[in-house]
Amino acid sequence: MAENKESKKYNKKTSSKTQKKNTQKSRTQKYTAPKKNAPKKEVKYEKQTNKKTNKKPIKIIPLGGLGEIGKNITLYEYDGDMFLVDCGMSFPDEDMPGIDIVIPDFTYVLENKDKIRGMVVTHGHEDHIGAIPYLLRNFNIPIYATRLTIGLIEGKLKEHKLFESANLNVVKAGSVVKLGKFTVEFIHVNHSIPDAAAFAIRCAGGTVVHTGDFKIDTTPIDDKVIDIARFAELGKEGVLALLADSTNAERAGFTASERLVGGSFSNLFAKAEGKRIIVATFSSNIHRIQQIIDEAARCNRKVAVSGRSMLNVVSVAEELGYLKVPKDVLTPIETIKNYTPGQIVVVTTGSQGEPLSALHRMAFSDHRQVEIAPDDMIIISATPIPGNEKLVTKVINELMKRGANVVYERMYDVHVSGHACAEELKFIMSIVKPQYFIPIHGEQKHLMKHAELAQLMGISKENTVVAQNGSVIELSQKGVKCSEVVTAGRVMVDGLGVGDVGSIVLRDRKLLSDGGIIIVGVTIDSVTHEVIAGPDIVSRGFIYMKESEELIQEISDLVWDIMDRCQYQNIRDWATIKNKIKDGVSRFLFTRTKRSPMVLPIIMEV
Amino acid sequence: MAENKESKKYNKKTSSKTQKKNTQKSRTQKYTAPKKNAPKKEVKYEKQTNKKTNKKPIKIIPLGGLGEIGKNITLYEYDGDMFLVDCGMSFPDEDMPGIDIVIPDFTYVLENKDKIRGMVVTHGHEDHIGAIPYLLRNFNIPIYATRLTIGLIEGKLKEHKLFESANLNVVKAGSVVKLGKFTVEFIHVNHSIPDAAAFAIRCAGGTVVHTGDFKIDTTPIDDKVIDIARFAELGKEGVLALLADSTNAERAGFTASERLVGGSFSNLFAKAEGKRIIVATFSSNIHRIQQIIDEAARCNRKVAVSGRSMLNVVSVAEELGYLKVPKDVLTPIETIKNYTPGQIVVVTTGSQGEPLSALHRMAFSDHRQVEIAPDDMIIISATPIPGNEKLVTKVINELMKRGANVVYERMYDVHVSGHACAEELKFIMSIVKPQYFIPIHGEQKHLMKHAELAQLMGISKENTVVAQNGSVIELSQKGVKCSEVVTAGRVMVDGLGVGDVGSIVLRDRKLLSDGGIIIVGVTIDSVTHEVIAGPDIVSRGFIYMKESEELIQEISDLVWDIMDRCQYQNIRDWATIKNKIKDGVSRFLFTRTKRSPMVLPIIMEV
Repeated sequence: MAENKESKKYNKKTSSKTQKKNTQKSRTQKYTAPKKNAPKKEVKYEKQTNKKTNKKPIKIIPLGGLGEIGKNITLYEYDGDMFLVDCGMSFPDEDMPGIDIVIPDFTYVLENKDKIRGMVVTHGHEDHIGAIPYLLRNFNIPIYATRLTIGLIEGKLKEHKLFESANLNVVKAGSVVKLGKFTVEFIHVNHSIPDAAAFAIRCAGGTVVHTGDFKIDTTPIDDKVIDIARFAELGKEGVLALLADSTNAERAGFTASERLVGGSFSNLFAKAEGKRIIVATFSSNIHRIQQIIDEAARCNRKVAVSGRSMLNVVSVAEELGYLKVPKDVLTPIETIKNYTPGQIVVVTTGSQGEPLSALHRMAFSDHRQVEIAPDDMIIISATPIPGNEKLVTKVINELMKRGANVVYERMYDVHVSGHACAEELKFIMSIVKPQYFIPIHGEQKHLMKHAELAQLMGISKENTVVAQNGSVIELSQKGVKCSEVVTAGRVMVDGLGVGDVGSIVLRDRKLLSDGGIIIVGVTIDSVTHEVIAGPDIVSRGFIYMKESEELIQEISDLVWDIMDRCQYQNIRDWATIKNKIKDGVSRFLFTRTKRSPMVLPIIMEV
Repeated sequence: MAENKESKKYNKKTSSKTQKKNTQKSRTQKYTAPKKNAPKKEVKYEKQTNKKTNKKPIKIIPLGGLGEIGKNITLYEYDGDMFLVDCGMSFPDEDMPGIDIVIPDFTYVLENKDKIRGMVVTHGHEDHIGAIPYLLRNFNIPIYATRLTIGLIEGKLKEHKLFESANLNVVKAGSVVKLGKFTVEFIHVNHSIPDAAAFAIRCAGGTVVHTGDFKIDTTPIDDKVIDIARFAELGKEGVLALLADSTNAERAGFTASERLVGGSFSNLFAKAEGKRIIVATFSSNIHRIQQIIDEAARCNRKVAVSGRSMLNVVSVAEELGYLKVPKDVLTPIETIKNYTPGQIVVVTTGSQGEPLSALHRMAFSDHRQVEIAPDDMIIISATPIPGNEKLVTKVINELMKRGANVVYERMYDVHVSGHACAEELKFIMSIVKPQYFIPIHGEQKHLMKHAELAQLMGISKENTVVAQNGSVIELSQKGVKCSEVVTAGRVMVDGLGVGDVGSIVLRDRKLLSDGGIIIVGVTIDSVTHEVIAGPDIVSRGFIYMKESEELIQEISDLVWDIMDRCQYQNIRDWATIKNKIKDGVSRFLFTRTKRSPMVLPIIMEV
């Protein structure tokens, strides 16, 4: 259960136990902002020696989110108690055709059911909450998160009919949750969704800071700046390890403030006077939507929302007070025909070019309420996620063919990232001053780059751990080791099936999609082994059968020959006959067409 | 045949016919460099009135390369004579599984065989030469290009066994080719392959400048700067239309010089002292390879080449003198084990992360001669082509997991583009001063952006033509119209099959890859219509059959039911029975699994 106390209170009660060296300092000292120009030696992290040598090590086990973007989940263990941070999904790679989503492998979590005290969640993005229903259907644990995050998890659990039994707990930033021998303090951070949190995780083994996704925005839309003072205070108290978001580690400098986008909207809305405006963005970026609504209200425009997830998030966010909508600004999408183009802003999903999204349907004239017209101004307020570049470009090109004026990232500041860039990452390290550094949330290249930054900040290579999913990182003030590896991996979800699509099925899908299939049906007399019906040749995805009668006839003749030869050689084993048909037809087709369809013989016996 | 005369000679002989208004000017005047700070009114293009109103219009018909990146091909027509510019291929989209390459639809070219006098080729990249063999196997026409371009076409035709019959003609920059009523002058331009050319296309209807791919490099590796003077001279003579490369129209500023990359190599090679260096780049970027070889020679390193296309291009380029290799610098890849890492540079293919390329094989420990070691420095000297981002990232991550130091674009200037950015495009317009502007080589968004640039330069909207593949652009000094559209499109090549994979086959491949296939085999007595064998249920790419016996049994039971009902209702039409099985099984599986495999009933009659 969440102890809804201010972090100050918490410090009063418990910090004396775990952070002895700071007890002399007064509270005000603790909350002093970090010295920005502190002498460099302060940033160097000598190995701290500790007298209490009987302390047990903290184990940190990333089960997802390392060496990949998405499906973030980390398990913490201390002295027999465990808890989880986040439980996200990821999207399938191009080598997973037909797969809907990918979730973490929960084997190790389920093996340790008895030890797990709960889950804390950093924020409400799919890559941090998307796999929660799949865990909860196996194993119901209490979940702690801020209000918006709980609101979004709630919707997800309702869809999966798991809400009734769920144990969801709202925690305010600054509050502390007790999970067995751990306590977890929620610290407010900025990100591209409101109400995001970092965690200060405490146990007798030390303090670990886990950032989740974050950026430093000194002018956020809700005026709630990341709680830098708290990070600095933790740094002064002494932090054993920092786990930080590596997504933008490759990017130099500072991420721009969300407010920058508002300025661009202002300019673009002014330019588009008299014209309809359509803005596509991430449905979870509530501050972005707020800025669109504010600008629309200023220009006396109505805002219509299109796209299922956008409608859903707008309704949750408005209900919980995260989205402030002036009276009469929202109008149902069905009513836009009652207004002139200059009176309307449409906010829509589809900023990633997703084929079923509202913007995609608009682009391809498949949207019931919005027909793109040459005077429309369309703003794509997002950057393509790696892998989506071509999808997004396709939609932009299509919208342009319809004459619309399309504004996308290259041209104006219509998007900023939600993740900290190199200078912010260095800044956080400089104030948290961890003994050990563990980059999380990123592919190998992001983790490596983040590790390089840590070394620039004076954290030694030995104290920087670039781990993999499944690594058991054992940390104590005496040192770090990564000797053990536990089960961690990806589980594919296809329809209702969770984990039933494996490598063989995927390999077959790939083969089928590359070359199609040729089915050879033959019915055999069970006594004489003579062919009494067929061979019937059916193909799908190989060639257009109606235009290839000759080739089909040749395959049929070849199968006759093979069957004849089998009978002559007295081969009566079905597996052998099938293999002979398969090899013979495959070889024939490769020679004739340089293609390799799957060949599938079906022999029935009468 | 190419008339190998200097452009000066050509002007002497023929310019008086077509460019009357310039005949008074002296030669020296003609060759004067363009005034860079010419007053702005000079850049405005008033509609020129022409007294000779009986001139016929020039028709320009882009058959590929518009609204897409790749498969560039343009047909020019004047008074019954036609010729082609380029004949390129493109790579398949993600919605074309199993397709090897995409080529233009040649229908309109073949319909006009009798009129076509030949083909001129701008440069030797695949998107400009890749489809030549597919055209030549139907229709043998003379081809004119510069020496390196002809060398690369030659290799391609040999592979397709078309070289013996081909009519290939080497043309020097500055020379002129006569093609029916047209003449085509080759003008040297810079690009990411040597020996690239733009064309000044002349006929009685006027002069058209067609840039091909180009950039302005004032410090190119071969010291051959783009022939700006000639473009300027043409501008003074009067240009009816400019067709220019739109690839980088979205990018502001000037593209950096290829020489910049040499500087980066210098720094990186110095850093990597004692370590092995592996550089991946485009095999056709001969100047890039030259710079690697030069730097290696300076550092007393041997250069080993890996990858089929890299070996091929290096051998052609060295033979033709485009690559200057100091004695004893090249060493076969098999010999690198005889040297210390600090003595070796490997130049390899795979800068796009292509799964069968040498670098990919190195990353996944599948390369015979190169095993990646923690001390290797790997430089990826290229930018991912849109759509390849994830492939490239996969390779980078894998190399990093093996401990290598990987340098890629974000970090250093290890790549520059071969295409002109906005300022270069504006510069060319400012000196060519065309009456009409037609952006080519680009997706809709690139063409639109390029058109916007033209309008900035004073070319009116009416005189700017954003066309589509197949548009027949009719140009005369009186005006432009685009009333007709001819057949143009994409033809897919799959193995030996050209054009036999159409939309139905692709749709089936997509269905098969998303959900796999369930085959229901039944043998029926032709008289009683009773089931005498089966139903046999076989699946591929749907579920792992060995783990789904129960589900398979249920399908089998369902098929029995359906067959029974058909018999009871006296349904004897096969198509109807098949449809009932298909619908019944599909519906059952969707309810049970929320998946939609293809269901294929095969009924055999005995």
